[in-house]
Amino acid sequence: MHVRLFRFAAMALVIAWASTAVAQTDPLPSWNDGPSKQAIVAFVTDVTREGSPDFVPPAERIATFDNDGTLWIEQPIYVQFAYALDRVKALAPQHPEWKNTQPFKAVLEGDMAALAAAGEKGAVEIVAVTHAGMTPEEFRQGVKEWLVTAKHPRFDRRCDELVYQPMLEVLTYLRANGFKTYITSGGGAEFIRAFAEERYGIPPEQVIGSRIVTKFERRDGKPILFRLPQVDFIDDGPGKPVGINQEIGRRPIAAFGNSDGDLEMLQWTTEAGKRRLGLVVHHTDAEREYAYDRQSHVGKLDKALDAAALDRWVVVDMKRDWKSVFPPYP
Amino acid sequence: MHVRLFRFAAMALVIAWASTAVAQTDPLPSWNDGPSKQAIVAFVTDVTREGSPDFVPPAERIATFDNDGTLWIEQPIYVQFAYALDRVKALAPQHPEWKNTQPFKAVLEGDMAALAAAGEKGAVEIVAVTHAGMTPEEFRQGVKEWLVTAKHPRFDRRCDELVYQPMLEVLTYLRANGFKTYITSGGGAEFIRAFAEERYGIPPEQVIGSRIVTKFERRDGKPILFRLPQVDFIDDGPGKPVGINQEIGRRPIAAFGNSDGDLEMLQWTTEAGKRRLGLVVHHTDAEREYAYDRQSHVGKLDKALDAAALDRWVVVDMKRDWKSVFPPYP
Repeated sequence: MHVRLFRFAAMALVIAWASTAVAQTDPLPSWNDGPSKQAIVAFVTDVTREGSPDFVPPAERIATFDNDGTLWIEQPIYVQFAYALDRVKALAPQHPEWKNTQPFKAVLEGDMAALAAAGEKGAVEIVAVTHAGMTPEEFRQGVKEWLVTAKHPRFDRRCDELVYQPMLEVLTYLRANGFKTYITSGGGAEFIRAFAEERYGIPPEQVIGSRIVTKFERRDGKPILFRLPQVDFIDDGPGKPVGINQEIGRRPIAAFGNSDGDLEMLQWTTEAGKRRLGLVVHHTDAEREYAYDRQSHVGKLDKALDAAALDRWVVVDMKRDWKSVFPPYP
Repeated sequence: MHVRLFRFAAMALVIAWASTAVAQTDPLPSWNDGPSKQAIVAFVTDVTREGSPDFVPPAERIATFDNDGTLWIEQPIYVQFAYALDRVKALAPQHPEWKNTQPFKAVLEGDMAALAAAGEKGAVEIVAVTHAGMTPEEFRQGVKEWLVTAKHPRFDRRCDELVYQPMLEVLTYLRANGFKTYITSGGGAEFIRAFAEERYGIPPEQVIGSRIVTKFERRDGKPILFRLPQVDFIDDGPGKPVGINQEIGRRPIAAFGNSDGDLEMLQWTTEAGKRRLGLVVHHTDAEREYAYDRQSHVGKLDKALDAAALDRWVVVDMKRDWKSVFPPYP
């Protein structure tokens, strides 16, 4: 009996140890086993194994991530757009004339059709009053304060809590394997810098995004930078490889996106004649998040979905591949 | 006798050990003892000592360095300008019309007066034929090849060997203390990326500089970036803080320069109401390098020299402060 008991206990210990070991060594626990997860792990293994024909030295292990729809939620409207609308509302008491002036009237009345009709000119006017006229530090502070209070209309959670748990695991996994992880977003770099370090572990110097013109000047005798109501650079589509070259000066070896705005970045990264990884998050999960692709006004995924087949990018099927979408709610 | 001999040997060992220890712990061996060296060491000690009121967490230890005249030689003409002139000469056989067209005629005849007369328009034309019309990779490769063969007219050494040994020690010392070291140059980012990693230990993603417009396109079916003959951003003077904010997104805690082009960067870095370091290399050594400041056409140091006194920047007297200027010749 004693011997049997001992054997049983030993076996139980071995099983417990083995399952712990598996749990500890699975770098992507929120990913279901399947081709997407396997492709990510195979790529990382191939480029990091010394002596492998695909080995890449650590200094060249650059991975770039789109933000909206790739690392966090982008429906029903871009988070940064929601910020701009809320800022207009917050500033409205100081601008009584906005009640009768487009595009502000449309924002205050929640008239999305009138807002759409105001077009690019309207958008520039909204950016001017919500994103310019302050220092980068002041702008970031405003975004931080807004993130604390603003809630996503469907999930009733802070927007920066609606980041994708499986993608956070990819970020951590890559960094543990010597990668430098960058954001390269069509959204504003300063907007993303307000939360990227805390939420993604990505420091400000690894955030590349769209920019407005910023000017050095003196205010009250102090040297400052001041944000002007003028677009400087749009980090989207063909702008993404350009922004990457400006700020990193190396071609990434892995790129992650979810829309046609990521097409050129994915092509430039993967069409290099070497072992590379391109990955597209396909939003297929209307129940847990959203389902959209070729027809969507936000995060349209059409050309890049066709290109994914040609260039053999991993297409993540959110519904099938992800065990969970968002991090556990505290 | 034996005992005395033993004592003597022991004493000799202690002395040898002590001098080795001193040599090992002096992080700036090419700097003479004096106020400049002391100021650098005191700053690093203050911001890195846990519990110090001036302590700065490692993530915020950003140090920015001008390149021309701060990390390497800039006389009698900027190295990048010498490159452009040599490229014009190399390309001339394919452009017989240059013999009779300014500004190329001036370059080919070495007529610096005519070249100066061609002004900004002439400069743009030279940049167009020497810096544009290729990918960033091709441009960098061209610079690398040129650096191997081109010799400095006075020192008869490769230009990238004419880097300042004392400044290399500052870079290493800062990095050993958790700093991230960046270049922020009025020169072209891609030009500097051709040698910065090898010579300074500064990777491409930590090189900020002036840029020409770069465009994504397909060539022979491959996605590439292509350099166009159009200035995108001048990273000089008030542009330096702007470039730093674009690419780093943090205000440096230490800045190093040598000319009026570094004025705003130094002000923005040091006028922050906290323990900061500003340092200006003053070229005072006509014998070992060059002596120039307020009247110089290259690396003019006038306003920044006045500001140095006001803002209490370290002004390095090259002749007095530096034991050696260049690294030992192999």
